Amino acid sequence: MPSCARATASCCAWARRSAAIGVSEADGLPVHQPRVLIIGCGFGGLEAAKALRDAPVEVTLVDRTNHHLFQPLLYQVATAGLSAPAIAAPIRHLFRRQANLTTLLGEVVDIDPIARTVRLADGGTLPWDRLIVAAGAVNSYFGNDAWARHAPGLKTLDDAFGIRRKVLMAFEAAEREADPVQRAAWLNFVVIGGGPTGVEMAGTLAEIAHRTLPGEFRHIDPARAKILLVEGGPRLLSALPGSLSESARRQLERLGVQVQLSTKVTAIDGRGVELRAASGESRRIESRCVVWAAGVRGSPLGALLARRLGIEVDRGGRVPVLPDLTLPGHPEITVIGDLAAAHSHERDRAPRAVPGVSPAAKQMGRHVAQDIVRHLRGEAGRPFRYRDWGNLATIGRRSAVVDLWLPLGRFHMRGTLAWLFWLFAHIYFLIGFRSRLMVMTDWAWAYWTSQRSARVVADIEGPPGPG
Amino acid sequence: MPSCARATASCCAWARRSAAIGVSEADGLPVHQPRVLIIGCGFGGLEAAKALRDAPVEVTLVDRTNHHLFQPLLYQVATAGLSAPAIAAPIRHLFRRQANLTTLLGEVVDIDPIARTVRLADGGTLPWDRLIVAAGAVNSYFGNDAWARHAPGLKTLDDAFGIRRKVLMAFEAAEREADPVQRAAWLNFVVIGGGPTGVEMAGTLAEIAHRTLPGEFRHIDPARAKILLVEGGPRLLSALPGSLSESARRQLERLGVQVQLSTKVTAIDGRGVELRAASGESRRIESRCVVWAAGVRGSPLGALLARRLGIEVDRGGRVPVLPDLTLPGHPEITVIGDLAAAHSHERDRAPRAVPGVSPAAKQMGRHVAQDIVRHLRGEAGRPFRYRDWGNLATIGRRSAVVDLWLPLGRFHMRGTLAWLFWLFAHIYFLIGFRSRLMVMTDWAWAYWTSQRSARVVADIEGPPGPG
Repeated sequence: MPSCARATASCCAWARRSAAIGVSEADGLPVHQPRVLIIGCGFGGLEAAKALRDAPVEVTLVDRTNHHLFQPLLYQVATAGLSAPAIAAPIRHLFRRQANLTTLLGEVVDIDPIARTVRLADGGTLPWDRLIVAAGAVNSYFGNDAWARHAPGLKTLDDAFGIRRKVLMAFEAAEREADPVQRAAWLNFVVIGGGPTGVEMAGTLAEIAHRTLPGEFRHIDPARAKILLVEGGPRLLSALPGSLSESARRQLERLGVQVQLSTKVTAIDGRGVELRAASGESRRIESRCVVWAAGVRGSPLGALLARRLGIEVDRGGRVPVLPDLTLPGHPEITVIGDLAAAHSHERDRAPRAVPGVSPAAKQMGRHVAQDIVRHLRGEAGRPFRYRDWGNLATIGRRSAVVDLWLPLGRFHMRGTLAWLFWLFAHIYFLIGFRSRLMVMTDWAWAYWTSQRSARVVADIEGPPGPG
Repeated sequence: MPSCARATASCCAWARRSAAIGVSEADGLPVHQPRVLIIGCGFGGLEAAKALRDAPVEVTLVDRTNHHLFQPLLYQVATAGLSAPAIAAPIRHLFRRQANLTTLLGEVVDIDPIARTVRLADGGTLPWDRLIVAAGAVNSYFGNDAWARHAPGLKTLDDAFGIRRKVLMAFEAAEREADPVQRAAWLNFVVIGGGPTGVEMAGTLAEIAHRTLPGEFRHIDPARAKILLVEGGPRLLSALPGSLSESARRQLERLGVQVQLSTKVTAIDGRGVELRAASGESRRIESRCVVWAAGVRGSPLGALLARRLGIEVDRGGRVPVLPDLTLPGHPEITVIGDLAAAHSHERDRAPRAVPGVSPAAKQMGRHVAQDIVRHLRGEAGRPFRYRDWGNLATIGRRSAVVDLWLPLGRFHMRGTLAWLFWLFAHIYFLIGFRSRLMVMTDWAWAYWTSQRSARVVADIEGPPGPG
């Protein structure tokens, strides 16, 4: 496989090109180390960067925000349970002790695989010898982009603040509304999509309505809010075994969520949603707060890169990669995480598609980092193998489902035990001790008081507000 | 003095009018209790509402945000030391157990003193028998409103997020800047105004540059950032004795802040500021991050109310009030807090102007609440007397100045002792045990690690971002 020769050759141009982007060396001598550029500091990019700590390379990590976001807990920011800083760690701080890494804030808008550069939104360019594209996914409305305005998804902190505002303001508007029909519409919440995010959002909304807010309003009873979870398929959490899907449904209904399976969304506007059941029957739900958790697609950067290389992205906007996660004819370019249409290669088994989950992104990040080091030693890349530990989703206070794949066998958990497992797993994987401490404190508080600590909306009118 | 007769008479119209705003009684009988409307839930409005807890009145508290903001710590949100939820408590939650109080989210845009109603931005109206106007202050640029765009002030959470973004992004831009002149401009920070907010901002910016960020950048040394504090008068913290002003200046300079006294700002644009010293000498400072802490004026609602009553606001946009904080000819309307041009009335002393500080607002809030109860009993209002406990300002890690007025005498503190006093005073006065816990944890962490926990910018381009 690939070409250390090529990597080394292009390094000679380093000093010249680096001057153009303001990179200079302390001693005036060019440093002959391959430059690895990582686009995106999600789980994949972060792991790749960390795994290159001791490699003889110069790493540049470029992201369009200044923080790594712990996305599995983003729904907690959206539902006012956590402040933004609790789940967002400054990238620069995470890598302060990694001497071979430079953090850059910027948005990559183009990739040139021939000149081996990327172009940033502000016009600057960055050169690279090895490129790791870890740009992640964006919300996907299956061609109905107009729905985005009325049913925000949950991918960024701004998304989360937008949803937090919508949820809290809906109760405020209901309190001021004299007309009972309008008031009911303000108290209808619709979550679209029965994957982990949808289940977590619906469960948490039910807890806000039933446990957090009652007693604080004078003209409405927040406990009479209706939370509807709509799923197109025949069961929730399709990645989990059927018995756990069924358990999740029962636990949600116990919290007061109405679950509507085998139901498609046919329209979303500013006043409500239109649903069509499998029977063909249509109905309209008046609602002022609709949350989209039904799907994501690869970042547009993937389609752009594919076009440059003459390949095609798949239906989910993801870039098809070779077994070692590189691109055909370009062993120096890898695509990882949610943006990659990757397969897991195991002995004696047909390749299986890798799911778009954070453990997969992290494993891919480590894999490509190790392969880069192997390439530098003249060794070939290895096919990626995804180690699946199972799936889990939380539903609410002391309720969750866990499907664990251990070497000893497969374990199912539900209820309080599953919830405790989910809790500690998430705190364990949170980046940085400081965030763990913040989140633990917040959760302990929330558990004992049923209160949510981040019920703050900075600007009640505008777009984005605070954490 | 005023007229319980009038208050009682107008109550008869309550049921009729209340129907128009969606207020209804459980048993169909009109409730014969005077309606007190409080505009604004800053320190004044909050105290007034709390003090009316057991009064035989119906209280409505209207605010245009959903939270009470602990403004003295807003600079910590702006400098990434605290998350927004740590200093913002949901108003509704604070008053959940006060049965005679209704919280309403809305912006008052007009006051009708004859019909005794206020109009909200969304067109709704609210009736009242007693009105407490506690709308606070806004940033004032002394007629140069164009400066606002380049030099944000610090009054709301959105202001704080904007400044946080500016500060953090300035270091990011400097890291990417190749031209040394431009780079220096990105690392010039100018704080205008040497009152407590300006002193706190400048001191904290110096700490960020010298303690928090060093080691995290590859192309710049954040410790070489220049922080300039500009004050028009001859000394900092003019409300404190001269010796403490001098001590604050020395402590700031020890932290690396350049203090420029007797210096006026003559221009602010997107690239820097122009200063004129008392000697008449002018100079220009290139800077991309200018913070305005030089002045506030009364909310525009004060001028509007004054116009309706045919009186005039003072130069600071504040409404002149009678000794009992009511308005001439309108004993049913009181103005309190930063919006009131009030005087303290003490035996054997000439009336003294009440300063625009939070203890004064709180005392005014309690005063008018007690007077409302007195009026209901047919007693007259009493002149307001401001109990001044002194002043304090923090400068940075283990440095502050305190001027304490106790019955036993006057105490001055500076350095570590003053800092500890400031710390515990602020934690003590924070609203809600939960916030106290959050802030204490954050500060303990920040103290031991020199790290700041809220270095998050949600949207690096847009306006408002997160906390």
